[in-house]
Amino acid sequence: RGEWMEEVEPYGLIGKIKAQPGKRAELIALLSGGTGDMPGCVAYLIGEDLKDAEGIWITEIWKSRQYHADSLKLPAVQAAIAKGRPLIAGFETHVETRPVAGVGIRG
Amino acid sequence: RGEWMEEVEPYGLIGKIKAQPGKRAELIALLSGGTGDMPGCVAYLIGEDLKDAEGIWITEIWKSRQYHADSLKLPAVQAAIAKGRPLIAGFETHVETRPVAGVGIRG
Repeated sequence: RGEWMEEVEPYGLIGKIKAQPGKRAELIALLSGGTGDMPGCVAYLIGEDLKDAEGIWITEIWKSRQYHADSLKLPAVQAAIAKGRPLIAGFETHVETRPVAGVGIRG
Repeated sequence: RGEWMEEVEPYGLIGKIKAQPGKRAELIALLSGGTGDMPGCVAYLIGEDLKDAEGIWITEIWKSRQYHADSLKLPAVQAAIAKGRPLIAGFETHVETRPVAGVGIRG
């Protein structure tokens, strides 16, 4: 049970992004690059869908909902969003969670 | 980029479990308890769906598909499955992934 679990209200997101055909690797590189040191970001996991060649799954844990909202205003994140938009075909899943347990998370 | 990323083929799962009405907390306690030290388990994150009172989302990262398969044979995991089965209404999402980036993961 890491320190991050002691935040008042950790906030989680699980989402599936569909890349434009052939653009998944490029989009993943972009998503990975923009997320190295966002304040309040506890975990940001990216996986390729094994059965959908354009599918990307992202699992996020934040110290609070506010930290996530604030991250969207960071210049590096805004730049990544602007670059990523033309690579994205759509969003298929977007779920908000309250993270309650996490093995393997730092802190 | 942690050590776990250097495995030949890390394996991920993202799933949604629906608990029986009123049984989500009990099921989460069971899921959390059985997963402390499974060999090859890089991350095991559990979150409550904010919009579905019975929904539980689990994001898993394993060093390989084989480690995950082997974990299902562990006595502690088999005991948790047996205890958990009557608390589960169904599985709504079950996606296999290839984890490609992870901020916040130990190792």
